[in-house]
Amino acid sequence: SRSIDLAVIPGDGIGQEVVAEGLKVLSAVLPQDVKLETKEFDFGARRYHATGETLTDADLAALKPHDAILLGAIGDPSVPSGVLERGFLLKLRFAFDHHVNLRPSKLLPGVATPLAGEPEIDFVVVREGTEGPYTGNGGTIRKGTEHEVATEVSVNTAFGVERVVRDAFARAQARPRKKLTLVHKNNVLTFAGHLWTNVFNKVAAEFPEVTTDYIHVDAATIYLVTDPARFDVIVTDNLFGDIITDLAAAVSGGIGVAASGNINPSGEFPSMFEPVHGSAPDIAGQGKADPTATVLSVALLLRHLGYESEAVRIEEAVSADLAERTGKPARSTTEIGDALAVRVAG
Amino acid sequence: SRSIDLAVIPGDGIGQEVVAEGLKVLSAVLPQDVKLETKEFDFGARRYHATGETLTDADLAALKPHDAILLGAIGDPSVPSGVLERGFLLKLRFAFDHHVNLRPSKLLPGVATPLAGEPEIDFVVVREGTEGPYTGNGGTIRKGTEHEVATEVSVNTAFGVERVVRDAFARAQARPRKKLTLVHKNNVLTFAGHLWTNVFNKVAAEFPEVTTDYIHVDAATIYLVTDPARFDVIVTDNLFGDIITDLAAAVSGGIGVAASGNINPSGEFPSMFEPVHGSAPDIAGQGKADPTATVLSVALLLRHLGYESEAVRIEEAVSADLAERTGKPARSTTEIGDALAVRVAG
Ligand SMILES: CC(C)[C@H](C(=O)O)[C@@H](O)C(=O)O
Ligand SMILES: CC(C)[C@H](C(=O)O)[C@@H](O)C(=O)O
Repeated sequence: SRSIDLAVIPGDGIGQEVVAEGLKVLSAVLPQDVKLETKEFDFGARRYHATGETLTDADLAALKPHDAILLGAIGDPSVPSGVLERGFLLKLRFAFDHHVNLRPSKLLPGVATPLAGEPEIDFVVVREGTEGPYTGNGGTIRKGTEHEVATEVSVNTAFGVERVVRDAFARAQARPRKKLTLVHKNNVLTFAGHLWTNVFNKVAAEFPEVTTDYIHVDAATIYLVTDPARFDVIVTDNLFGDIITDLAAAVSGGIGVAASGNINPSGEFPSMFEPVHGSAPDIAGQGKADPTATVLSVALLLRHLGYESEAVRIEEAVSADLAERTGKPARSTTEIGDALAVRVAG
Repeated sequence: SRSIDLAVIPGDGIGQEVVAEGLKVLSAVLPQDVKLETKEFDFGARRYHATGETLTDADLAALKPHDAILLGAIGDPSVPSGVLERGFLLKLRFAFDHHVNLRPSKLLPGVATPLAGEPEIDFVVVREGTEGPYTGNGGTIRKGTEHEVATEVSVNTAFGVERVVRDAFARAQARPRKKLTLVHKNNVLTFAGHLWTNVFNKVAAEFPEVTTDYIHVDAATIYLVTDPARFDVIVTDNLFGDIITDLAAAVSGGIGVAASGNINPSGEFPSMFEPVHGSAPDIAGQGKADPTATVLSVALLLRHLGYESEAVRIEEAVSADLAERTGKPARSTTEIGDALAVRVAG
C-alpha cells in the first residue's frame, strides 16, 4: 500500500490558514489506499522569538526522512529583515539542495490580470535555487562609517548551472511547444553570463527538438507585460528568477494563485512546496487569505511524488473554481478550501 | 552670450536616425542668442570592427571638455555580447562618474500601455550608475571545463550609495508628492542591503518633508503593474535599476518614449543623455524608428544645463504629438522629428 509522509511547516501570518486548506484538499484528492501521514513543525517568527533559533541541524535531521515538505509562509515584521529569510528559507533550500525552483505561470480563464486584452500566459520558470547572488558570500568592512564597503558575491558553477539547465531542457522537451528561453544579463555580468550561455548552448545540443533563445533580464520584464505568450519554459539564475517570477505571478492572476516547488530532483533530500506569497501579517487570522496558491503547490507536490492524475484533478478543480468567481462575493479561506475539496473528491 | 557645446555619438543601428531628429528639435527650441556647437564622434560597432577600439583614453579626453553628450544607441549583433556594453557604454559611465542614472516614467494621455484600466504613472527612477554588480569585479576559473566557477562581485560603498540617495531625496523633495521609495533586496543581499538601508534612513533625517518607504525588488515589479501610481521617486542599485526601468518603460508607453540621463551632478565630467532603447538593427536605416525617446532625452539634457523652459517646451510638444497619434497612420522618423520641431518653435 502506498503512503505519503509529509512534513508540514505552517509558519507565520496566513501560513497556518492556507496550509490547513492545502491539507484538506490533499486528503480529499488522495485515493483510499494512500495513507497520508503529516508531522507539523513549528518554525518561524514565534520560535525565533522564543528560542533565537531559526533552523538547527536537529531540525534538518528531523525534516530529512519525510517524502516532501509543505510550507505556508515564513516572515514577520517583528523579526529583522534577513534573519528568517537567510536563517530559515534559504538555509533550507541550500541544506536540502533545492536547486530546481519551479514556478509555473498560467493565466486561467476568468482570472483577472493587470494586462489589457486577453493575453495567453502559460509558461514555467525554472529558477536556479542554490547559487548566484543567494550564496551569502560577500561582506562588509568599516560598517556604519562613511568608508563602509559592502560586497555581494554571485557564485556560479558549471556543475550547478548545468544541472538546472538540463532539468529545464527536459521540461521544455516534455511540453507541446518545446521552447526554452535563457534569461540572464550576459552583456554586463560577463563572467557568470558566459558560463550560463556556454553551458546552455552545450546542453542544447542534447535536445535538438527544443527551440532556444536568449533574452536579457531587463528585456524579459518588457516581454512579460507586452508578449507573455512568447514564453514556454524559462531557465534563469537565482536572483533574476526571484524578480521575474513575482512579475510573472502578478500578470497571471496575482500571488494569490502562484505556486512553487523547491525541488531536489535526485530525491536525496525532500523537496519543498510553497505558495509564492509571503505571510501577509496585515490579513493574518481573519480568514481572508486565498488558499489557492497553497492548493496549487500541493498539486506540484503530488506531481513530484508521482501522483499525476491527482495533481491534474486539483488543477482542474482550481480552474473551475476560479472561472466561477467573477461577480460573486468574496469567500473566506475555509470556504474556498471546502469548495476545492468538494470538487477534487467529486 | 550663451552657448552649448555638445558631443554627439549617433552610434549604431537606428542611433544615427534618432539623433538627427533630436538635434533638429534641439536647434528649433533654442533661443536665437544661444549658440549651439556640435561635434560628432564615430563610436560603436563600425569603429570596433575597423580598429578593435571601443573607447580609448584619447576618446575620453576628447569628450571631456563638452558641456554634455547626446548618444543614440550602441550595439550590433556582429559584435560579441559584452564588448561594446562593457567596453563603451559602461566604460563611459564609469570614467565620467555618471552616478545618477535618471529615468523618468510618465504615461502621457493617448499613449498605449499594456496595462488594463487607465493607470496613473508619473515617477522617476534614480538608478545608481557606478557601483553594484556593474563594476566588472569577479572572474572565472577553469573556464570551459566542468569545474568552472564564475563570480560577479557587487561592490557598494557608503560614499557611492550616499551621494545617489541624497540626490534622490532632493529630487523627491522638489516634486509635489515628495515621496521616495528605496528598492533593494535587503532580506537576501544583507551586506549591500544593510548599507543601502542604513544610508537611506540616515539621509532621510535631513529631508523630514519626504515620505519614505522600502520595497523588495521582486515586489516592486508587482506594484509596477498593479499599482504604479504608488511610486513618485525610486532610488535603487545599478542592476535593480536596469531591470525595473525597462519594466517601467514598458508600462508607461514603451521604450519608444523612454528617456534617460547619465548624470555627473558635480559637473566635473559632461553628463550623457540617451534613449533607453537599443540600436534595433532590425529596423535600422528604414526611417521606422520613433525619435521621441531621443527628443525627450534632449529635454533632460536641456534641464541639466539650466534651460528649464526649453525642456518643458519639448515635453509639452511630445505630449501634444502623442495625444494626436491615435488612429493616424504611422509616420517616419523624420516626419515625427519635423512635427516636433515645428511644435517647439511655434
Ligand atoms: C523571502 C525570500 C528569501 C524569497 C527569495 O528571495 O527567494 C522569496 O522572495 C521567494 O521568491 O521565494
Ligand atoms: C546595454 C546595457 C549595458 C545597459 C545597462 O545594463 O545598463 C542598458 O540595458 C541600459 O539600461 O542602459
